[in-house]
Amino acid sequence: MARARSEERRAEILRAALEVIAERGYRGATLGAVAERVGLSQQGLLHYFPTKEALLVAVLEDRDRWDTGGGRGGAGGEDGAWRLELLGSLVEYNAMRPGIVQTFSALLGESVTEEHPAREFFTHRYTQVRAAMAATLRAEYGDALPGGLSPERAAVLLVAVMDGLQYQWLLDPEAVDMPEAFGDFLGLLKGAAEKG
Amino acid sequence: MARARSEERRAEILRAALEVIAERGYRGATLGAVAERVGLSQQGLLHYFPTKEALLVAVLEDRDRWDTGGGRGGAGGEDGAWRLELLGSLVEYNAMRPGIVQTFSALLGESVTEEHPAREFFTHRYTQVRAAMAATLRAEYGDALPGGLSPERAAVLLVAVMDGLQYQWLLDPEAVDMPEAFGDFLGLLKGAAEKG
Repeated sequence: MARARSEERRAEILRAALEVIAERGYRGATLGAVAERVGLSQQGLLHYFPTKEALLVAVLEDRDRWDTGGGRGGAGGEDGAWRLELLGSLVEYNAMRPGIVQTFSALLGESVTEEHPAREFFTHRYTQVRAAMAATLRAEYGDALPGGLSPERAAVLLVAVMDGLQYQWLLDPEAVDMPEAFGDFLGLLKGAAEKG
Repeated sequence: MARARSEERRAEILRAALEVIAERGYRGATLGAVAERVGLSQQGLLHYFPTKEALLVAVLEDRDRWDTGGGRGGAGGEDGAWRLELLGSLVEYNAMRPGIVQTFSALLGESVTEEHPAREFFTHRYTQVRAAMAATLRAEYGDALPGGLSPERAAVLLVAVMDGLQYQWLLDPEAVDMPEAFGDFLGLLKGAAEKG
């Protein structure tokens, strides 16, 4: 019972954090701002999330769960793999939520520095995401894509393009149409040369 | 004369910063550590670079100048455009210098946050790099690549793949072969399906 209440509170904090991120961006999403939104003292919030990084990692984990979310309308199947035709929609959806994309991108940038608290999360996440993408591509195309790559090697590029496009788009949204560019890449994977 | 000496000192500081980055990484590359290396007080260093971000941006600008460097063995032509066949070598070279790649990636991550001092540098850099890559692709393939994309749209993806691969590689160098993956992408641009 106490555990259920604690879980509920945790979910409430994550929702509040997502709101604050959407409104104020990565830098504005301080522990103090989130605590205030959810009606806790900062000390009370620290009981659930000891650092800003821990809170943001939890927000990103939650987003991944929703985006792949079994049966909840996300882009994922029940095995946690993304469905390929919905990946484009996911990128379109991301283009409408710059706050969370900015948070993801900023924290990913920090995570490659020495002993950063989010490094383990991202390393583990990419191992999982590459495997899930490879499974998705294999289900769609078998052991070699129309473009000639194995699903595993194509998965590395698929993830790289999604991340790389986000930086260009966040810096200059007028210059970079993220969903269009991602569609271009899916075309390349499918061997767009056939059409050319 | 005073100006020449000042320029020389500046170049010396940038070389020292690059060494400190290579040895200690992004976090270890403090203004204090760079000042010590070059035999200046921290106050003396601030005369040349008022913040860590300003110093790191100057280091990255310098790297871009060398990598595209007209006639100095870089991947660039005299117009500042990269030569396509040397881009793969540039990625191989980057795989041997994780310190500077980490610095680039960490600062790029920070730059997408509100009012970050490196935001203008990166926004401007990407505008230039996309244009240079498009010029390179057009020189090689004309107005449509074998894979069917225009040089401008392919350039967005080329840059995204380079950046995105760096994050995956920095987090997990055993799992991601950055030069191989980049070669895979160049193959896709060339319409690898023909070979498949």
